[in-house]
Amino acid sequence: MFFSSDNSSPAHPKVMEALVAANAGYMPSYGGDPIMDEVRARIREIFEAPEAAVYLVATGTAANVLSLACYCPPWSAIFCHRNAHIEEDECASPEFYTGGAKLVLVDGEHAKMTPETLRETIRFTGRGGVHNVQRGMVSITDVTENGTVYSVSEVAALAAVAKDYGLPVHMDGARFANALVSTNASPADLTWRAGVDVLSFGGTKNGLMGVEAVVLFDPDKAWEFELRRKRGGHLFSKHRYLSAQMQAYLADDLWLDMARTANARADRLAEGILKIPGASLAHPQDANMVFAAFPRGLHHKVRAEGAAYHIWPGHQSLEGDPDEPVSARLVCSWCTGEDEIDGFLGALNA
Amino acid sequence: MFFSSDNSSPAHPKVMEALVAANAGYMPSYGGDPIMDEVRARIREIFEAPEAAVYLVATGTAANVLSLACYCPPWSAIFCHRNAHIEEDECASPEFYTGGAKLVLVDGEHAKMTPETLRETIRFTGRGGVHNVQRGMVSITDVTENGTVYSVSEVAALAAVAKDYGLPVHMDGARFANALVSTNASPADLTWRAGVDVLSFGGTKNGLMGVEAVVLFDPDKAWEFELRRKRGGHLFSKHRYLSAQMQAYLADDLWLDMARTANARADRLAEGILKIPGASLAHPQDANMVFAAFPRGLHHKVRAEGAAYHIWPGHQSLEGDPDEPVSARLVCSWCTGEDEIDGFLGALNA
Amino acid sequence: MFFSSDNSSPAHPKVMEALVAANAGYMPSYGGDPIMDEVRARIREIFEAPEAAVYLVATGTAANVLSLACYCPPWSAIFCHRNAHIEEDECASPEFYTGGAKLVLVDGEHAKMTPETLRETIRFTGRGGVHNVQRGMVSITDVTENGTVYSVSEVAALAAVAKDYGLPVHMDGARFANALVSTNASPADLTWRAGVDVLSFGGTKNGLMGVEAVVLFDPDKAWEFELRRKRGGHLFSKHRYLSAQMQAYLADDLWLDMARTANARADRLAEGILKIPGASLAHPQDANMVFAAFPRGLHHKVRAEGAAYHIWPGHQSLEGDPDEPVSARLVCSWCTGEDEIDGFLGALNA
Amino acid sequence: MFFSSDNSSPAHPKVMEALVAANAGYMPSYGGDPIMDEVRARIREIFEAPEAAVYLVATGTAANVLSLACYCPPWSAIFCHRNAHIEEDECASPEFYTGGAKLVLVDGEHAKMTPETLRETIRFTGRGGVHNVQRGMVSITDVTENGTVYSVSEVAALAAVAKDYGLPVHMDGARFANALVSTNASPADLTWRAGVDVLSFGGTKNGLMGVEAVVLFDPDKAWEFELRRKRGGHLFSKHRYLSAQMQAYLADDLWLDMARTANARADRLAEGILKIPGASLAHPQDANMVFAAFPRGLHHKVRAEGAAYHIWPGHQSLEGDPDEPVSARLVCSWCTGEDEIDGFLGALNA
Repeated sequence: MFFSSDNSSPAHPKVMEALVAANAGYMPSYGGDPIMDEVRARIREIFEAPEAAVYLVATGTAANVLSLACYCPPWSAIFCHRNAHIEEDECASPEFYTGGAKLVLVDGEHAKMTPETLRETIRFTGRGGVHNVQRGMVSITDVTENGTVYSVSEVAALAAVAKDYGLPVHMDGARFANALVSTNASPADLTWRAGVDVLSFGGTKNGLMGVEAVVLFDPDKAWEFELRRKRGGHLFSKHRYLSAQMQAYLADDLWLDMARTANARADRLAEGILKIPGASLAHPQDANMVFAAFPRGLHHKVRAEGAAYHIWPGHQSLEGDPDEPVSARLVCSWCTGEDEIDGFLGALNA
Repeated sequence: MFFSSDNSSPAHPKVMEALVAANAGYMPSYGGDPIMDEVRARIREIFEAPEAAVYLVATGTAANVLSLACYCPPWSAIFCHRNAHIEEDECASPEFYTGGAKLVLVDGEHAKMTPETLRETIRFTGRGGVHNVQRGMVSITDVTENGTVYSVSEVAALAAVAKDYGLPVHMDGARFANALVSTNASPADLTWRAGVDVLSFGGTKNGLMGVEAVVLFDPDKAWEFELRRKRGGHLFSKHRYLSAQMQAYLADDLWLDMARTANARADRLAEGILKIPGASLAHPQDANMVFAAFPRGLHHKVRAEGAAYHIWPGHQSLEGDPDEPVSARLVCSWCTGEDEIDGFLGALNA
Repeated sequence: MFFSSDNSSPAHPKVMEALVAANAGYMPSYGGDPIMDEVRARIREIFEAPEAAVYLVATGTAANVLSLACYCPPWSAIFCHRNAHIEEDECASPEFYTGGAKLVLVDGEHAKMTPETLRETIRFTGRGGVHNVQRGMVSITDVTENGTVYSVSEVAALAAVAKDYGLPVHMDGARFANALVSTNASPADLTWRAGVDVLSFGGTKNGLMGVEAVVLFDPDKAWEFELRRKRGGHLFSKHRYLSAQMQAYLADDLWLDMARTANARADRLAEGILKIPGASLAHPQDANMVFAAFPRGLHHKVRAEGAAYHIWPGHQSLEGDPDEPVSARLVCSWCTGEDEIDGFLGALNA
Repeated sequence: MFFSSDNSSPAHPKVMEALVAANAGYMPSYGGDPIMDEVRARIREIFEAPEAAVYLVATGTAANVLSLACYCPPWSAIFCHRNAHIEEDECASPEFYTGGAKLVLVDGEHAKMTPETLRETIRFTGRGGVHNVQRGMVSITDVTENGTVYSVSEVAALAAVAKDYGLPVHMDGARFANALVSTNASPADLTWRAGVDVLSFGGTKNGLMGVEAVVLFDPDKAWEFELRRKRGGHLFSKHRYLSAQMQAYLADDLWLDMARTANARADRLAEGILKIPGASLAHPQDANMVFAAFPRGLHHKVRAEGAAYHIWPGHQSLEGDPDEPVSARLVCSWCTGEDEIDGFLGALNA
């Protein structure tokens, strides 16, 4: 009954096997390994993007902020939802890597921007000439921080607003695989065909040890990305171990299988919760995360029985009226068992 | 009928006289001029702060961002009203100078934070440990960007919230003189006695050519300020010309006299506007700025007769229904004539 | 007998007159003043550069670092002489404004790079791909920090090396007028025709209160410069006072007259020093600065008689063997009197 | 015959075993894993530093620049040898992370600073007050970039100079294990007892996949380090995989065994080279790197037979007189076989 984070799950055994296999003999360092050549080719194939530049880093923050920095000069506005990970959970790393750009926050229910809220926010920004930050980039998080998913048409609608203002589009796809299987879209359709210019293509939360790809659909920024990655300290000397993880991830659709499992577990969890008297969903459950509200007393009970998860939003207290609802985030991953779901629902329902 | 900005007004003739007087013979550079010694002593006296460190720079942005940078590490949150000048009109200069701190925006009517909105915003920031920006500093703008003024007790109430969280307080006093004469407070009462740690003490908008003092009531940051000023490119070699302006400003209460005149003109303007059918004030008029709404048709009329001012907020259009109200910012300065006020009111009223 | 710095001299009376004249009535702020239009046109005319973008700032550091930042991304190498002002006297301001570029230091006697030392340094930089800083820009100081002057052909030779590597060229012309009258060149010949892309065109050291122009011969960087100036805090609200100074500077060749006077005084000083037994020049005297070595005992003597100047380089001590030579920097300006020169030489010679 | 870099070697099989063992079940993320508790305790024990703060990152650049940034404000000078990795091979990452500090380069043969060259450089830096960068930190690389090793007394002598000026000391120990076994010193003696304040304790080059520890002997900077690590994008969510590598590294002295093997192979290689007519060592061979010079013709020969290594310094050409010596860097690691050494020597000697 461990729902704290997909970051707490182990890597898939096939990933470990690939690492062990890659651990033989000498291999060129700093990305010159032959495994990376295969990874690059495979990602280009999967995304139907034969010109894309592809790089690997080890953390989602690195993937995001290096991508943003390539497109956002220090005087620019980065438009994102006010609950975006880049705003709420990266300790001003985008500001650091861009040299002081400003995140301009867009409203919207369930952590989703709408074309209207995005357009309004862009329109109000940068009208004052040199006195204001200039419109820079739009960053879309898919899966969102509330577990909701933008469909292909929703991404396209946001990107269309961005393009109206000549702005490039970044997608924070830390849970991209979960969004993809949720929408049943093709990778190309959910990204560059919808107007995305650069993608943080997550792997860590979905069964890797620690690898994220950055896919620059427009390779013009490739060299700048390489320089920024190096001086960010994110270029791995023994790069083969990043490559090997990503190679295993993409082989035989392992990445999609793992995401399908995670999403299915969350489906089961959400369905079960909706049957609990006094329980409800705080946000639609589209992928592998369930945001549920249930009475404070039940939190005490299921936690006592071993359930682990985050109270969300974090300012809610577990002290107080036991009947009052308190909401929580419950995250499933590739390794979440049906038994864990059922055990949790049983504890909640008892 | 020129109400565009106090930045468009000339310097007071006494300031020019002081400049000419200072322009004789050799004088030590980089702040070693004897005039600066007098200025420092006089500011300490005016603020009843014998230990304060006092520095001069030439722009309000420099005064603000150097002050913030001394107190706000790159991972910190700067709490300010969402209409603060540092947020809206400095092109992410605070982010640049701090190395990427984040401005966290506080709500409140008429560009004023309240103790409640400030506390709520602080409370919600930085709870997530290392993943979030850390609570850094509170920045209060007095006079606000909407022309309202925080009283001594209001400043003290905000500073008390800051102190509850151990946070230092900055005051953006680009129009400090106008706030002071509006509140009838003493400089010490409106600043350090109320809890302000560092003040941007404006002169440019109030009759100088281009000088702002930074008053560090706690001199511990003095050396850091000097280094940041230098590498910001804000240390003047021929510093005497900054000193001379400030010396003239403070002599014989010229600064207060100029602010009183500006505020009185705005009083007269606001009173007149309130008598115009269909006109109203968008914000309380506390100092030298009047935010007035009147029918679009009247804007065309008074502009045709030579009135100059900014439509505020800037997204409003002058094209459309002539009866619909459109709001404007009208700024008075030390040199605004009563005849200008009356001419404008006459044009508006005709 | 004040030879500490041209920064210690007053502004020329005509500059003060121009300031007083500009101090009448309202005028658009932030560079929209009509005086700036005249200044821009005049600088374009003087430099025979009708497309150049022209901006004013108040300090030489600001002019230099904003110029460098427009051309040098954070991962780039700025090639300059190891005694350049940007390396030695700006407290890492270039590193701040560029976001962390690296100054790569070039050798050469008398603070002058040679085509050979420059080429060798460029050649050795950035060969290691992503691991090294990339070749960025060449910055030439003319007049140098040792008072020597690059001729037109010397500037052109350095710029040719830069162009061989596709690098843009900056000129730190804090004492540009002194270099110009020393070389008897035209402004265009000493700058863009020789290969300079951006010039810090100094005024402060040569009779202004505090104004430097930045001349971007290639106006492509103009908007970026404006944004960087704003967020650096270097955009003046009451910009007219910068414009007025520069207008007076350029009128009737005042700037050249002042530089000619300063250089002539230094000529007189250098000639006199060479006649003093035991005195010598540490560097060729090409413009308004004399670097002279004479016995320690004489330093005590002339200082006792009121001479003011800097021991240069600064690590030399005035304590020790009175016969040992100690070198000094003696700076002349537009207002240095022949009597000052003769008085100093007399004191030295007595 | 692969001597290109220790970065090209695989990880030790025990490290892979530890990774597989750690890959079971859920585990707290972001460093809260229980393996990290053991790692921290073990490093404190090894270094006899029970108060030290210990963190893991994945790259040597990250370890170095985060350490430097905690001690070096943006206006400071970082004193290091002119061939230090932080100067030559990190693409101005220190400048980026510190917000624009300046690396001030110290001379010395074989990539080693001496107390004299260090003192002289420190003494000449920062004397000009606010105009110069301020003395910040000394960074010592051990093993150096030329393969030489500072002994305990040499580190202590450099640190003593630093302490004379009140400066903290960083050690870039990317090859710390190799230095340690070379000097036969204890970890405490070679670091904090000699005056080192913070150590980049490398693992990647010595048999790990990608882990470096940062050991802050003075834990005062711990929280700042954590914030800088996070916003640098260097906090791993699935941190257990860093911990597990380091745990295996330290268990049963694996780290020392691997370093001993690497050093012994280099000993064998150096001895062999010295017997080759026309070959010589460019630098003393103290640890696992051999810098050898031999005729250009031999380079062609051994490369044709499969030897891989870097020409060092990199500006030397392989085209030209076949008898002329060209120097090379030959790196041994834990997995370099004696047969590789002997094969290489045989090829060279034939």
